[in-house]
Parts: sequence; C-alpha cells; structure tokens
Amino acid sequence: MPGVGRKSAQRIAFHLLERDRGGAGELSRALAEAVQGIGHCKRCRMLTEHDICSICATSGRDESLLCVVESPADVMAVEDATGYRGLYFVLMGHLSPLDGIGPEELGIDILEARLSAGPLRELIIATNPTVEGDATAHFLADLAAKNKVQASRIAHGVPLGGELEYVDGGTLSHAFFGRRLVD
Amino acid sequence: MPGVGRKSAQRIAFHLLERDRGGAGELSRALAEAVQGIGHCKRCRMLTEHDICSICATSGRDESLLCVVESPADVMAVEDATGYRGLYFVLMGHLSPLDGIGPEELGIDILEARLSAGPLRELIIATNPTVEGDATAHFLADLAAKNKVQASRIAHGVPLGGELEYVDGGTLSHAFFGRRLVD
Repeated sequence: MPGVGRKSAQRIAFHLLERDRGGAGELSRALAEAVQGIGHCKRCRMLTEHDICSICATSGRDESLLCVVESPADVMAVEDATGYRGLYFVLMGHLSPLDGIGPEELGIDILEARLSAGPLRELIIATNPTVEGDATAHFLADLAAKNKVQASRIAHGVPLGGELEYVDGGTLSHAFFGRRLVD
Repeated sequence: MPGVGRKSAQRIAFHLLERDRGGAGELSRALAEAVQGIGHCKRCRMLTEHDICSICATSGRDESLLCVVESPADVMAVEDATGYRGLYFVLMGHLSPLDGIGPEELGIDILEARLSAGPLRELIIATNPTVEGDATAHFLADLAAKNKVQASRIAHGVPLGGELEYVDGGTLSHAFFGRRLVD
C-alpha cells in the first residue's frame, strides 16, 4: 500500500491484534462496506456511494465546462485549490498501451457521449505533465476537435515560489517557450 | 556562505591549514584575482572579466530578443536548458523596497536605455515567480510598454513530470486559470 512498507505493515498488524481488536473489527467492517458500497459515478466516473457523485449532483455548477483529470485525488486537488465551478470527468488512469490501457479502460465512450450531446463550451485537460499524461492530453484534444468542442490545457512551467536556478531543464525550457505576452 | 555552515567551515579551515597549505595559498590568490578582475558587463550586468561579457560579445545572437533575469545563475540555467539565442539583462536582484533595493540598484537606467535605443522586438521577463519577482515583473512590463516594446513572461504552472495531486494549491490554481487553448 502507498506509504506503508513491510515493517510499518507488521507494526500496524501487531498493534491492532495486541491492543485494539475492537478497532480492527471496525476497520474490517468499514473496508467491507466501502468495497461493496462505493462505485463509480455514472456521469464522471468519480468514486461515490451513489449512482451520481455529489459534484455531478450539485445544482448550479457550470455545465458548459468539463475538466478531465486522471484520478479522484486530482478532483480533490482542483476543488481545494481553484474554486472551479464546472464539472469533472475522471479517467481513472492514463493511456498506456504497454499496460493494456486504451481508450475503453478510461471510459472514453462515456466522455465522447458527453462531448457530442451536451452544451459544452470548453474541455479543460488537466492530465499530469508526464509522458503518458501528455499522450492522453493529445488524444483528448483530438477527441474534442472531432466533436467541435474547444479544448484547453492547464499551464505548465516554473512552480510559484520556485527559483529558475533550481528548476529542472525540461520545465525551464517548456516555461521559456511557453511564455505569454503581457498586455 | 551558501551550503557551508559553521562546522563545515571549521573543517575546511583545519583541512587547508593542516594538510594543504599550498592549496590554501592558491585559493587565496584566485579569490583575490576574482575580486579584483571580475566586474559587471556594461551591456547586461552579467559577471565578467572584461568590459563586455562573452554572451554580449558573441556575434550572431538575436539582438531583437532580451531576456531579463534576476541573477547570473539564472543566465546559466536558461543557457543550459533552452537553446535561447537572444541576449540577457541581469538585474542582480529584485525590487525590494524594505531592503532599500529600488530601480537604481537594479540598473534599470541601463535597461531603459537599451529599450528605447535598440531594435528590440520582445522583452522576455524571467524573474522568479515569488512575491518580489512578480512585483519586479510588473514594473518591467510597464517599462516595456512605456518604450513600446512587447513584453512576455515565462510560463508558470505544474512542473513537467509533476502530478496534480502533489502540487501546491497556489501553483495548481495559477495553472488552472492560466490554461491555454489547444489549436
């Protein structure tokens, strides 16, 4: 499990068995409930206990904006940081042909249905700036173009508070050639 | 000195005195020469042994592009990472009124002379995305506008290879609202 290695796992197991059997039972039940009860939102593939997740179900969000991210954690990050009021689509991964992950595994059919049907003004592509994330972003931009929806990609460059001297060459180069005119 | 604390300094001092007095003498002479011989380039304020630094003296660089950075280390970073072929201007700091650093200390008069005189097409502002760097960038953009030179700023956002989940909120928010339309 992420962040828990062999030693930590052993320590947790012994702690639960020796000192907190009640807690272990509760954890077991909570896990079983989560495994059974939590599925994917039918509109955006976010994790949810219901058919439609709480974000999709909220009235008053801007239905003309759709932000595509790779994981549920990314939805939380964008929600916390930006005050964005549009909707999301969660790929639950990125294109990775070597691992057998193609468009079908990412729910692209559901996304395409939304692109062709809805009153969508902009598809905001917020996949990670990694090799796979970039490939996925290109794929999504093509998909948007095919459905005549304007696509945009979140900015990449020097992180705020960062110093040029300590930024890696790739990012600096990208930031340099992606410079923006000042009005 | 950056990266050398009290203990390291003591260790270096004892090492030089006990085991390498010849090296210490050489270091002392090299330092004295550097202090005496290295000054600032008259065109761009970069550190140099001559009147004009090696970058400004190179023929064939694009004189219509001027990139403003905060420090000589930033010049090296941009040179190494980007393949940029224009010229530089080194502020040797950023605006910081509390520390008594205003436009005079940053050589803005030399910069303004270049803006008003030269065949400049674009002023690329590459100050750090910190509070002081941002303030300096605004000041420079105004200066460029006053001299009718187009200004641009290098991109800020999620660093390449980074993941949204681990990026700080400020950067993510900036990346989100600074998103670019995909053609």
